[in-house]
Amino acid sequence: MAKVNNQLQKKENLLALRHSVEHVLTQAMINLYGKDKVIMAMGPATDDGFYFDFDSPDDFKISEADFPKIEKEMKKIIKADLLFKRKGISVKEARKLFKGNSYKQEWLDEIEKEGKKTIAYWTGNDFVDLCSGPHIVSTGEIKAFKLLSVAGAYWHGHEKNKMLTRIYGTAFETREELDKYLKRLDEAKKRDHRILDRQLDIFVINEDIGRGLPLLTPKGTIIRNQILEFEQILEKEAGFEQVWTPHIAKNELYKRTGHWEHFRDVMYSPFGIDNETYVLKPMNCPHHYMIYNSKPRSYKDLPVRYAEAGTCYRYEKSGEIGGLTRVRALSIDDAHILMREDQIDAELDLCIKMILAIFKAFGLKKYWVRLSLNDPDDKVKYMTDSAHWKKAGEKLEEAVNRNKLEYRLAKGEASFYGPKIDFMVEDALGREWQMSTLQLDLFMANKLDLAYVDKEGKNQHPVILHRGLTGSIERTIGLLIEHFAGAFPLWLAPVQALVLPITDKVAAYAKTVSDSLKKAGIRAELDDSDETLSKKIRKAQIQKVPYMLVVGEKEEKEKKVTVRQRGQEKQEALDLTDFSKKIKQEIEEKIIF
Amino acid sequence: MAKVNNQLQKKENLLALRHSVEHVLTQAMINLYGKDKVIMAMGPATDDGFYFDFDSPDDFKISEADFPKIEKEMKKIIKADLLFKRKGISVKEARKLFKGNSYKQEWLDEIEKEGKKTIAYWTGNDFVDLCSGPHIVSTGEIKAFKLLSVAGAYWHGHEKNKMLTRIYGTAFETREELDKYLKRLDEAKKRDHRILDRQLDIFVINEDIGRGLPLLTPKGTIIRNQILEFEQILEKEAGFEQVWTPHIAKNELYKRTGHWEHFRDVMYSPFGIDNETYVLKPMNCPHHYMIYNSKPRSYKDLPVRYAEAGTCYRYEKSGEIGGLTRVRALSIDDAHILMREDQIDAELDLCIKMILAIFKAFGLKKYWVRLSLNDPDDKVKYMTDSAHWKKAGEKLEEAVNRNKLEYRLAKGEASFYGPKIDFMVEDALGREWQMSTLQLDLFMANKLDLAYVDKEGKNQHPVILHRGLTGSIERTIGLLIEHFAGAFPLWLAPVQALVLPITDKVAAYAKTVSDSLKKAGIRAELDDSDETLSKKIRKAQIQKVPYMLVVGEKEEKEKKVTVRQRGQEKQEALDLTDFSKKIKQEIEEKIIF
Repeated sequence: MAKVNNQLQKKENLLALRHSVEHVLTQAMINLYGKDKVIMAMGPATDDGFYFDFDSPDDFKISEADFPKIEKEMKKIIKADLLFKRKGISVKEARKLFKGNSYKQEWLDEIEKEGKKTIAYWTGNDFVDLCSGPHIVSTGEIKAFKLLSVAGAYWHGHEKNKMLTRIYGTAFETREELDKYLKRLDEAKKRDHRILDRQLDIFVINEDIGRGLPLLTPKGTIIRNQILEFEQILEKEAGFEQVWTPHIAKNELYKRTGHWEHFRDVMYSPFGIDNETYVLKPMNCPHHYMIYNSKPRSYKDLPVRYAEAGTCYRYEKSGEIGGLTRVRALSIDDAHILMREDQIDAELDLCIKMILAIFKAFGLKKYWVRLSLNDPDDKVKYMTDSAHWKKAGEKLEEAVNRNKLEYRLAKGEASFYGPKIDFMVEDALGREWQMSTLQLDLFMANKLDLAYVDKEGKNQHPVILHRGLTGSIERTIGLLIEHFAGAFPLWLAPVQALVLPITDKVAAYAKTVSDSLKKAGIRAELDDSDETLSKKIRKAQIQKVPYMLVVGEKEEKEKKVTVRQRGQEKQEALDLTDFSKKIKQEIEEKIIF
Repeated sequence: MAKVNNQLQKKENLLALRHSVEHVLTQAMINLYGKDKVIMAMGPATDDGFYFDFDSPDDFKISEADFPKIEKEMKKIIKADLLFKRKGISVKEARKLFKGNSYKQEWLDEIEKEGKKTIAYWTGNDFVDLCSGPHIVSTGEIKAFKLLSVAGAYWHGHEKNKMLTRIYGTAFETREELDKYLKRLDEAKKRDHRILDRQLDIFVINEDIGRGLPLLTPKGTIIRNQILEFEQILEKEAGFEQVWTPHIAKNELYKRTGHWEHFRDVMYSPFGIDNETYVLKPMNCPHHYMIYNSKPRSYKDLPVRYAEAGTCYRYEKSGEIGGLTRVRALSIDDAHILMREDQIDAELDLCIKMILAIFKAFGLKKYWVRLSLNDPDDKVKYMTDSAHWKKAGEKLEEAVNRNKLEYRLAKGEASFYGPKIDFMVEDALGREWQMSTLQLDLFMANKLDLAYVDKEGKNQHPVILHRGLTGSIERTIGLLIEHFAGAFPLWLAPVQALVLPITDKVAAYAKTVSDSLKKAGIRAELDDSDETLSKKIRKAQIQKVPYMLVVGEKEEKEKKVTVRQRGQEKQEALDLTDFSKKIKQEIEEKIIF
C-alpha cells in the first residue's frame, strides 16, 4: 500500500527534523548560558514535537519569558546552515567529550553494558551530542519551529531521581503546518477535559483516594452507563453473554498465564490473604477463561462469547497520570470469544462491525488500523512459537483486507500472547487516539488447558479472540469530552433538556413539562432557582445542555415549549408532545448535531 | 412490645436448653470413651442448635455411625435427671479440675488476664465444665435432641491452629419442633445453592481465582443485572443518582475515617504504589463522600443521594467461606444520603418503602427489624459521643414505629459510626437472614469535613444515612436460589421461555417463535438439539425454566404455541401474541408463581 509507505517515510523525516531542532535548541542554550548552567541530560523527538531535559544549578531558572531570546539564538544557528555529522567513536573518546556530565556518563555506562556502538552527532564543529540519529543534512533545512513550554521532569521519569527542567517545542516542514498545529494546540488546551470538567462536573480526582483513580459523578456515571448500555445492545444482538467477575485473583494464576512474566511492569504488588498472595487483576481474560473452563464444552457450543466491562488495575508512572485519559483503574469494555479455528473469520468480521458502529455513534469518522505484530527477536516480551504468530497475523491481515480497512504494520507492538489490530481514531482536532483492539491468541488455551471436544470426540484447544470495544471507558469519556468540546450528542448528554420557567407564575406548568419529559424517558431537569432567565440560559450554555425549553404564560396557554437548541440562536415554539417525539427519535438514532 | 419480649425470652430459654444438651453430649462421650480420647475444647449453643469441639489422639475417630451409641448414652443421663449446678470457683481450683487439658487451661489464662470470675457448671456430681451458663434445671427437662454431623474445625477458627473434631447437634423444647426443624434441614440440604448450582449454572468458584471470590456465569449475571436494574428503577423514582468509584483507595483515608481503627479485622493487607500504601475498599462510603466534597453545597442542594452497586472486599476466615452466601468480594447495593437534620424522617421513610418493595418482588413476606445500638461500654468498637448515639437511635426507633415495623433492640450490634436498623427476613424454609440495613451516622461528616452552607450562610455538617438495599448482591442471589429452590420468578429467571420443536419439520417455525419472543424483550431460547422431546422437557425441568413452549405441525398451522408452565401438568395452546403479552405482564408485575 503505497499510501502507507509514503506516510511512514514522511513521519520518519519529521522525526529527524524535530530531533535536529532539539540539537539546535541545546546548542543555542549552551551558547547563551554555558555548559555549567545547562547540563545536557536527554532530548528526543516525539509524535508532537520534541523536548530537551537539562539539569542546572539551583539558582538558574528558565521560563517561557526566555523563549524569544533562545529562539533568536536558534535562528542564528539555522542561518549558519551548519552540517549534521555522524561519527562512531569509542566509549573512551565519548567519556572524554562529556567529561563532568554525569547524565551522559550514565548513558555511556548503559552503552558499554550492552556492548553497543557509541555514535555522536556534531552540528558544525563546536556542538556535539551522543545520538544515534538520523538527522537532517544541515540546520538550514529548518523552516518552522517553536518553543512551547517549560516543565519539571524526573530523570528517567522516576520520582526518586532528580527533577530536571524540560523545554517542549515542535517543528514542521512548513510554516503552514506549524501554524495549523499551533492553532490545534490552542483549541486542544481549551478542550482539555480536565479544564472543561470544571463546568461539566463529570469526574472527580481526589488525592485522598489516590492519583489515577477518578470517581465518576452522577453526570459522569450517566455517560458511562449510556456507553455501556449501547455496547451491551450491540453485544446482545451479536450473541455475546455478559459475565461478572471480581477484581482480584491469586498471583499464582498470573504466573500460569504468563502475565507475571510478560506484564509484570504494570501490575500492582501482591498482598496476602491467609497463606496466599493475591493481586489486582490487570486484565479480565483469566477470569473469563475460568468461567469457560467450569464445564465441558463441545464443538457445537462454540463460539462462546463472554463480555464484561471489568475494572482492571494497571500501574502508570505518577508523572504520566492525568484526568480520565491516563488512569490506574480502567474499566475495559472487554470480551473474550472462545472458538474453533473455522470460526475466526466470521468472529473477526462481527467484532469489526461492532467497533465501526460505535465509532459512528461517537461521530468518529476517520480511523485506520495498526496491525501490531510481534518482534521475533524479542524473546522476553513475546511467547515463542513462530507458526502461531504467523497464522494469527495472517488471519488478522485477511480480516483487515476483507473489511477494507486502511492499515499499517507495526513490528513489536503485539500483545505478549498474540498479534492484534488496534483501531486508531482521529478526533475533531485531528489528534490520533488508540481505541478498540482485536487480539488473536493461539497460545493461552494451551497454557491454561482450555478445551472443547471436537466432532471426532477429541480434545482441542479453542482459539481466543480478545476484544476491547473502546479499550477503557474512562479514557473514552475523556476523549469524548475533548472531541465534542463538552457538547455531547443527545444520547450521551447527562441532561438532555432543561426547562426554564420565565416567571414563578408558570412554575406548575414548567414542572408538568419536566415531569412529562422524564416520564417519556428523557433526562430532563427543571431550573426553578431564583435567578434571572438570562443567567439560567448562560448557565445551561456553559454546561452545554442540548435543549433549553423556555416556558412562560404564552407557552402555558398554548401547551407549547419554546425550544433553543445548543449552538443555535433561533428559537422555535413546539407542542410538547411533538418536541418529546422529535428528541426521542434523535436519541434513538444517536444523531450528532 | 410484649410480643417481642416473649420471643426474646423464648430464644434465651432455647439457648439454655441447647447449651445443656451440649454438656450432656460431652458427658456421654467421656463416659463412653474416656477423658484421654475426648479432650474437651469448647461447645456453645447456636441459633440452630449447638456444637462440641474436642481434641483426641490421632488413632481415635468419631463418625456419624457412632451417633446412635452416643445418643443412647445421652438418654441415660437425661433419664437420670441430673441437676445442673452453678458454682463460682477460684482460677486455682479450676486449673486443678482441668489439669492436663491445655484448652481449658488456655481459657483460664484468658479469664485470669481479664480478671473475670471463674464459673463452673456441674451436671450431677461427676461431670463439670467451665461455663457461665445459663442452663436448665436438670437433664430431665430435655425432651427432644439430635446429633447431626461431624466436621473438622480449627481451634479458635484459625488455620494455623490444630484441627479439632466438631460434633453438631440440635435440641428443641418439643418433639414436634425438632421434627419440623429436621424436615426443614433436609429441605435446606436439597435447596443448598451450591448443590442446585450444578443444574442452574449461576456461579463458578475457582481455586485459581481464589476462595470466596465467585464468578458469575451468563445466567448468574442476568440475575444480578435484573436485581440491580429493578433497584435502579426504584432509585431513579426516589431521586437517587448513580455514581461509580474504583475499588481501592489510599490506606491513609481509612485511617481518617476510623475504618482502620474499628474495621481493620475485615480489611485486606495494604499494598504499595510508588511511595504510598493502598488497600481494597471494605466499604463504599468514603468514595461517595469524596464526590460530595468535590464542590460546595448549599442547604438547598440537600438531600444528595448517591447510589452504587460497588464491589467491596472483606476478609472472611477461609473456614467460613461458602458459595455465594459467605464471600470475600461483595457487591453492596449501597447508597449514601447526605442531608439536613430536618430531612432525616422523610429519607428514612423513603428508604424503608424501597426495601419493602424489594422484599415484595422477592416474595419475602415475613420480616422484622433489629434496631442495633451501640454498647456504650465498648470504647474500642464504637466512636464516642453519647448524645449522637442517643439522637440517632431515637430517630431510627421513631422511623420503625412510624412505619409499623416489628422490631427488637440489640445492644452492641451497631456500626462503629452509628446505630442501624437491620431487616431480618424469613425465607421459604423459615430461616432467618439479615438483609437490608439503614445506618444513621452523625459522626463521619465531622470527621471528614463534609459540609453545606445553611440558610444563615454558616457551615454545617450533613447527617449521613447509609443504605444497603439487600446488603450484598452475591449473597442475595445465593439466598434467592435457596428461597425459590432454583425456581426463580419470571422476572429473575435467566431463561424465561424455552421453545421445544417436536420435529425437525417445524424448525423454522420454532425459530420464528423464539425470535419473536426475543424481539419482544423476553429471554427466550430454542432447544434445537437432536434429543427427544421428553429429554428436552426433562432438561428444562431440571433447569426450572418457567415456560416451555412445545411446537409441532399443529401449532405451526394455527400459529400457536403449547404452553407448559413450570410446576404444572396441564398444557394450554395459546396464540403466540397472547402468550407474549401475558408473560410480558407477568414480568412487568414481578408475579411469583
